[in-house]
Amino acid sequence: MPLYRQLADEISKLIDSAVLQSGDKLPPTRELAGQLGLNRTTVSAAYSLLEESKRIEGQVGRGSFVAGVAAGTRQPVTTPGAIRDWEALLPPLEGAWKPSPHNIEISFDSSRPAQSEFPLSEFRRLSKQVIDGDEAGEILQLGSSHGYAPLRRYLLEGAAGSGVVRAGDDLLITNGCQQALDLIARLFASQGSSIAIEDPVYHGLLRVFARSGAEILPVPVDSLGIDAEALERVLQRHRPRLLVVTPSFQNPTGASMSLDRRRRVVELANRFGCVLVENDIYSELRYAGSPLPTLKELDETGNTILLRSYSKVAFPGLRVGWVIAPRPVVARLAEAKEISDLHSDQLSQAVLLRFAESGELNRHLQRTRQAGSERLSAVLGACERFLPAGTKYTRPEGGMNLWVELPSPLTAEVVLNRAQERGVTFLPGRHFSLGNAHLRGLRISFGGLSVAQITRGMRIVGEAAGHELSASAANRNLEPAAALV
Amino acid sequence: MPLYRQLADEISKLIDSAVLQSGDKLPPTRELAGQLGLNRTTVSAAYSLLEESKRIEGQVGRGSFVAGVAAGTRQPVTTPGAIRDWEALLPPLEGAWKPSPHNIEISFDSSRPAQSEFPLSEFRRLSKQVIDGDEAGEILQLGSSHGYAPLRRYLLEGAAGSGVVRAGDDLLITNGCQQALDLIARLFASQGSSIAIEDPVYHGLLRVFARSGAEILPVPVDSLGIDAEALERVLQRHRPRLLVVTPSFQNPTGASMSLDRRRRVVELANRFGCVLVENDIYSELRYAGSPLPTLKELDETGNTILLRSYSKVAFPGLRVGWVIAPRPVVARLAEAKEISDLHSDQLSQAVLLRFAESGELNRHLQRTRQAGSERLSAVLGACERFLPAGTKYTRPEGGMNLWVELPSPLTAEVVLNRAQERGVTFLPGRHFSLGNAHLRGLRISFGGLSVAQITRGMRIVGEAAGHELSASAANRNLEPAAALV
Repeated sequence: MPLYRQLADEISKLIDSAVLQSGDKLPPTRELAGQLGLNRTTVSAAYSLLEESKRIEGQVGRGSFVAGVAAGTRQPVTTPGAIRDWEALLPPLEGAWKPSPHNIEISFDSSRPAQSEFPLSEFRRLSKQVIDGDEAGEILQLGSSHGYAPLRRYLLEGAAGSGVVRAGDDLLITNGCQQALDLIARLFASQGSSIAIEDPVYHGLLRVFARSGAEILPVPVDSLGIDAEALERVLQRHRPRLLVVTPSFQNPTGASMSLDRRRRVVELANRFGCVLVENDIYSELRYAGSPLPTLKELDETGNTILLRSYSKVAFPGLRVGWVIAPRPVVARLAEAKEISDLHSDQLSQAVLLRFAESGELNRHLQRTRQAGSERLSAVLGACERFLPAGTKYTRPEGGMNLWVELPSPLTAEVVLNRAQERGVTFLPGRHFSLGNAHLRGLRISFGGLSVAQITRGMRIVGEAAGHELSASAANRNLEPAAALV
Repeated sequence: MPLYRQLADEISKLIDSAVLQSGDKLPPTRELAGQLGLNRTTVSAAYSLLEESKRIEGQVGRGSFVAGVAAGTRQPVTTPGAIRDWEALLPPLEGAWKPSPHNIEISFDSSRPAQSEFPLSEFRRLSKQVIDGDEAGEILQLGSSHGYAPLRRYLLEGAAGSGVVRAGDDLLITNGCQQALDLIARLFASQGSSIAIEDPVYHGLLRVFARSGAEILPVPVDSLGIDAEALERVLQRHRPRLLVVTPSFQNPTGASMSLDRRRRVVELANRFGCVLVENDIYSELRYAGSPLPTLKELDETGNTILLRSYSKVAFPGLRVGWVIAPRPVVARLAEAKEISDLHSDQLSQAVLLRFAESGELNRHLQRTRQAGSERLSAVLGACERFLPAGTKYTRPEGGMNLWVELPSPLTAEVVLNRAQERGVTFLPGRHFSLGNAHLRGLRISFGGLSVAQITRGMRIVGEAAGHELSASAANRNLEPAAALV
């Protein structure tokens, strides 16, 4: 059987077994060819065959999609009783072909804490106190869009004690930091406005602002966070409405702003009348160096909007974050929150309050910083030992992420494919900017792995990179003429 | 001291004691005059005085707002170090002056279950099982945007068993029904599109679509739900992209569609190629009459999008609802959900799954239906006994809400002010449509009150209406000339 028929059969089986489902996007032929080590024409031929048999549908300019059950008999939208052609009606899905075809043992691809280190017995003991408490009935009843009042009070008092809250500020509970970004986008971002963000930047942050229709102005990140000179040029030229930064242990680079850089960013935002949003979800996870003040503390105008969350320091499955900002801003965000989902889940708010109040959060943080410091040493040591000469990488002092820049002519996708074959995965750089930039960049998220996993995983990444580097050098030697074209 | 100075002093004290806070909107002079039984010029004079002393700020076309601390010294936005004039930068708040100045004992203003009837001991027992279970670690870790897999499976199997789910369908967990509406608005509603909704309709539903920028097409609701003739005219003329209906115990009217009406609505939506969204959060709360199929079941095309939730039948403080829809629709909604807040809280999903699986949800529903039937008898009996002649009201067979239409020349606001003086409140009709329609309408939400509260509360509402009716008749007698102008 020819290769293209074998491939078409394989894909058919994936559809039959519902691994691929109606509406799923197939990878571009070039990408799948790369992943499988096949010629691109082989993949194109397989796709054509699947189209003929109505298993998939090619859509001009959008790619190929797994067809619906009745795809062959679809009718126009307005015909009575028709199966609606949802794929034609709806915008295309952004994500495509995420799962690796290989068995993955070590995942550097998610910026999240280690489940093995969750303090389960403390969580169990304290949540039972909440459940047995007199407030259980109130927790189960409809709540406030601003958040569970005892938690808001606790967070406001804590933040006031540390100088983060000013007289005119208020606090809103959100479903983690992601919802805070979403509410801020609803309030400040729209068609016709522009938003300055770091580049590279966490894809969840990028996508929320990209969807708003606002123009995205990427500002490069160096080892001290956002590039102040580049930022000044962007603010001066475009006067964006919003500037969103992560001063401590930025995702994906792990970079932190120095005190000078922090002062400079605050000064620039104020000088150009730009609303400053500080994403401060990693700063408690410092494993080396000295703590630095938030931009919110440095901003004497009181205008900075600060985002925090329990997701990175406690349990991401309990969706609780918060915004501290001037009262008129919080009032609008709370209104947007009410329209979004009425209010955040109250059981988790009450459990996390108890976890924080009891001192267990602090004890957990101390243990997490200790383990984090061992992880950080392991990942930096592994980068030093295993990555091929010419590779650059950041040296974070905390957080969960580190950024690698591969030497030319390597790309992250090529190294990823080879690493996945050996059971290791990470996120390639193109996820962290619009328009597929950072092709040599990749993010190593080390927060959820053991020291042994980190070392073994980075060795495999390093070997994959080294192997591809030798292969490309060999290719250059074999095809000197082609290389000169 | 003249009245206007006394009033200005009173408002100053409310600001000093932080009952009114910087950025809060003051009621329009006419409204406050009506509420306090003062002349409008008195209120205007008090506002002027407060403006002179910088306690409040008048903004042309937007009303009066409580000033910030540094309001007198505010500078333009782009000046370095300035306190930003957030009120000028931000859109005005929609809600204003919500709390009643009176002590409220009986609230007919919230469509929510009775806290006193929450099965607390069952909740406590079952949540402890979840917390002690092996899945606790997984629950606390980052989850799927589609929802907690065991809950999704349970809900899909249950819905498949009852014929609600079709072969091409999928299910997404949301933070209650409100977030499902929000995600649907993001996917289908936008500037330039139009959306048909019921009129009157739940304000949370109205606001989510109004904010989207789409044109809102209100279709009247009669005692059998949405008016099919009017709906046909609207669909034919405007070809809206979306039609959102609540076939069972609609909020605010309590009206339910007959089987014929249901079939008609499905047929119309399909004929005109309109995406049909069925808000089905009250249908389990039937206290009289026979159950009817959902539109989703009647729609042979499989295209209807069905929304359900645990909020009305169990605990609104745990934010868990779900969407059942064709797979391509769910895939897009899940993508929008991921950008909104990554995923729903997993502890509550797991607790509600245990509550449902154990049979306790069904036992709770049986008790709730029994109590609901007693509440419904009480509210209908009280309407009959206490509301003045000429008042019309709906006769729901379930749910939590009933709609009253006062006889001319009464308005709901006038009756509300008098009822609030006697400790009873409800939501006036203007909240349930755009543009302050339904001035004689009001919603009585009886789901959270005891039979005694319902009876006493409705007597006070009836007496307030009767009193205002006599007063207006007396006014007509006193000023016959004016009445002819």
